[in-house]
Amino acid sequence: MIIAVDAMGGDHGASAVCPGVIEACNRNSDLEIALIGDKTVIEPYLDKADGSVRSRIHVVHAEEVVDPNESPAKAIRCKKHSSMRIAMEMVRSGEAKGCVSSGSTGAIVAGGVLVVGRLKGIDRPGLGILLPTKKPVFLLDAGATVRCKPLNLVQFSLMGSVYMKDVEKLSSSPRVCLLSNGSEEIKGDDVIVAARERLRASDDLNFGGYVEANRVPMGDADVVVCDGFSGNVMLKSFEGLIKFCRGLVKETIQESWLAKAGALLLYPSMKRLGARVDYQRYGGSALMGVNGAVIKAHGRSKAPAIANAIGVAYSFVERNALERIREDIAQELEKVAAEETLC
Amino acid sequence: MIIAVDAMGGDHGASAVCPGVIEACNRNSDLEIALIGDKTVIEPYLDKADGSVRSRIHVVHAEEVVDPNESPAKAIRCKKHSSMRIAMEMVRSGEAKGCVSSGSTGAIVAGGVLVVGRLKGIDRPGLGILLPTKKPVFLLDAGATVRCKPLNLVQFSLMGSVYMKDVEKLSSSPRVCLLSNGSEEIKGDDVIVAARERLRASDDLNFGGYVEANRVPMGDADVVVCDGFSGNVMLKSFEGLIKFCRGLVKETIQESWLAKAGALLLYPSMKRLGARVDYQRYGGSALMGVNGAVIKAHGRSKAPAIANAIGVAYSFVERNALERIREDIAQELEKVAAEETLC
Repeated sequence: MIIAVDAMGGDHGASAVCPGVIEACNRNSDLEIALIGDKTVIEPYLDKADGSVRSRIHVVHAEEVVDPNESPAKAIRCKKHSSMRIAMEMVRSGEAKGCVSSGSTGAIVAGGVLVVGRLKGIDRPGLGILLPTKKPVFLLDAGATVRCKPLNLVQFSLMGSVYMKDVEKLSSSPRVCLLSNGSEEIKGDDVIVAARERLRASDDLNFGGYVEANRVPMGDADVVVCDGFSGNVMLKSFEGLIKFCRGLVKETIQESWLAKAGALLLYPSMKRLGARVDYQRYGGSALMGVNGAVIKAHGRSKAPAIANAIGVAYSFVERNALERIREDIAQELEKVAAEETLC
Repeated sequence: MIIAVDAMGGDHGASAVCPGVIEACNRNSDLEIALIGDKTVIEPYLDKADGSVRSRIHVVHAEEVVDPNESPAKAIRCKKHSSMRIAMEMVRSGEAKGCVSSGSTGAIVAGGVLVVGRLKGIDRPGLGILLPTKKPVFLLDAGATVRCKPLNLVQFSLMGSVYMKDVEKLSSSPRVCLLSNGSEEIKGDDVIVAARERLRASDDLNFGGYVEANRVPMGDADVVVCDGFSGNVMLKSFEGLIKFCRGLVKETIQESWLAKAGALLLYPSMKRLGARVDYQRYGGSALMGVNGAVIKAHGRSKAPAIANAIGVAYSFVERNALERIREDIAQELEKVAAEETLC
């Protein structure tokens, strides 16, 4: 399986992406990587790969890089030789089964729509990410479609449910909830209320109504659906608070020798706990609703997070997520067409 | 100073509110409470107050209670004998300097607008809350105005800045930022972009542009401004994640005798840390933009959180927050009028 990887994105660029690619190849022996970016920058980092891994990494030279400050759509349209655009084109042409980039969210979404193309029946894509919560919770949209129409939220619900069922292999029917500012019916705005009414009428989903942000870590829903703005706020609130709490714990430990001794004894357990809530473990979010496995890695990704994002792309492809979503959406469209004929 | 307290709101009703009122009276010797609700329910809880405190608690009987599931505006309009409405009326008439309720946010906002009345120059109120972050950060709106116009966000910025300066006594000019889905200029939706342009043109504010949710706990802004939906998502994400992490830590400690021993040594430090991030410490959010000190306590408030919410009302009144906000808004309105005359 070939996955195209943008070597030039994110805060750390090739210095994080290249070791991440090597780690991903070490994990999966049937994985090949098309590593796209400035050859002269990339190649020195690949010297560390052993022979069998190195032979599976194919460097594709790209002269341009998409800058996070430029207009996403313009960058994708104009920078035809950028590493991100080339990665997307390899997915469209079928040369690669999927692609991974830690570049700007906006450009990845624009590339997904303009280059890879939308899935038939999907109006806007959504970024889906598994949260490091009690049990895996799929948040959709984490930042692709900043503001949504009710139809977008309904489509996210459908795609999220298929993802949890077919990629994450959830045994029961995934419970899909709309993120809202309270659990009561009087909560939400017009868009959320309209989406709720449409979801309630659906026979295909296990729709659980509203979920509040404080219940998300407890796993009250398997799929949490919201617009990209709210999803981004929730995801970043979690990230920021975990970082803040880590800092507080470190400070607290320095307070006394008693605390230091306690921390020493607790260290192995706390290290495991730290790994449990580390966003790097969940390095990739899938751009749901486009015609390929397009995975966004966190902008601050270091090598392990890049390897995990490539792992998300690998599972997405291996478990036929795209085909399943495509089938489900097609069935849904047929149903709607049949209902319209009846009316 | 008399503060009116709704005894019937929140998950725990009088069983939490009454001991909270007693605790608040113990803390401030010049505080008197008008405690509003069902006399027969309230009075047994007050037996625990010593004489000097008991004499400062005046029970006001109310026959009705606002239900969190009813339409907020309708409940406030129709239930004239409800504990919440009576508390608001005491503020309007001047019998009480402020009021506190742990009832539904919607009803408190409706009561603030319909009974207490809006401040001249303010279009919509916002709930302002101090977050338990590195340094105090004032989040506005935490849930009063679900969706906002740019003007609302500009007014929240002004009120938040005055609050941090005059009530929280911040030494430097408070840094006001708009919550967004990224720090770059291309982020935000139309409303946020329009608000940013207006705030940037203002001479009276120390406007810092966008802040992302992950930077809020680090104190990148003194005042974080957003619509009530996003504020609610952020606040509840913090709350939920803290609860989730506490649970994880407890589980982790049970893993081995080494971890248990370590936890025992760390206990005193961790207890202080736990208190540091406990939302109960920040029990009250102020309804900014109405003609009085209207404080909402968390629905899950127990006695200490109620006492803290009463403390927020006390500080709000003692530090003349209302008058300062009123003056600042009046100056702003004058300026706008002068500019219009010039044009």
